[in-house]
Amino acid sequence: MTRDELAAIYRDYIGCLNRRDWPALGQFVHEEVAHNARPLGLAGYRAMLERDVREIPDLQFHIEMLISDPPRIAARLRFDCTPAGTFLSLAVNGKRVSFCENVFYEFRDGRIRRVSSVIDKAAIEAQL
Amino acid sequence: MTRDELAAIYRDYIGCLNRRDWPALGQFVHEEVAHNARPLGLAGYRAMLERDVREIPDLQFHIEMLISDPPRIAARLRFDCTPAGTFLSLAVNGKRVSFCENVFYEFRDGRIRRVSSVIDKAAIEAQL
Repeated sequence: MTRDELAAIYRDYIGCLNRRDWPALGQFVHEEVAHNARPLGLAGYRAMLERDVREIPDLQFHIEMLISDPPRIAARLRFDCTPAGTFLSLAVNGKRVSFCENVFYEFRDGRIRRVSSVIDKAAIEAQL
Repeated sequence: MTRDELAAIYRDYIGCLNRRDWPALGQFVHEEVAHNARPLGLAGYRAMLERDVREIPDLQFHIEMLISDPPRIAARLRFDCTPAGTFLSLAVNGKRVSFCENVFYEFRDGRIRRVSSVIDKAAIEAQL
């Protein structure tokens, strides 16, 4: 797979998240996906995302930076959103916050197999 | 510059940090460097690093993942270290902690011009 092809798949994955198109998630996410070393599997990964959007109803993923190097992707994602209650153990309670996530993905068979993510919790704290 | 050449420069930069070779820092870091949108400049960047190693005397940078895509680098760095007192507003107080930093660099003229970094503060909190 070329760099551009993998980048296109990743952009489609982000589109899938932003549409809340959970039935399509399996096109992008491997059955055996692990997130920060937790072996969630596809069902657990979907549950994590569904919880995220329950806690943050206006959650949208914006790609600020994207590096494609098959089978890996690195992305800097930006969020401008209003977590309804507690998020990352912080009492955000409906305040609008802006923060980044720097995240690496490893693909297998064209789907996300491993996610190594760090969310900028300190940036959110600074806005509360 | 090729991917391998930029990756080699980055590995030399990490070696420079691990040796505390501050006089050599300007070989790797641009005079106008910005860190998380703060225009530190080389002197400010060096001061930030010197403060980091003052607060964490055993600080060593380990590259866990590296993606080179000139003029950009994405790296996942791992730290196993013992911050002496407070670190990221957390009272670590000499406890050994392990955490990651996911970080993007943009190079100009072969030197780091822009750093977009997120440290996994939540992982440190979970260990305290």
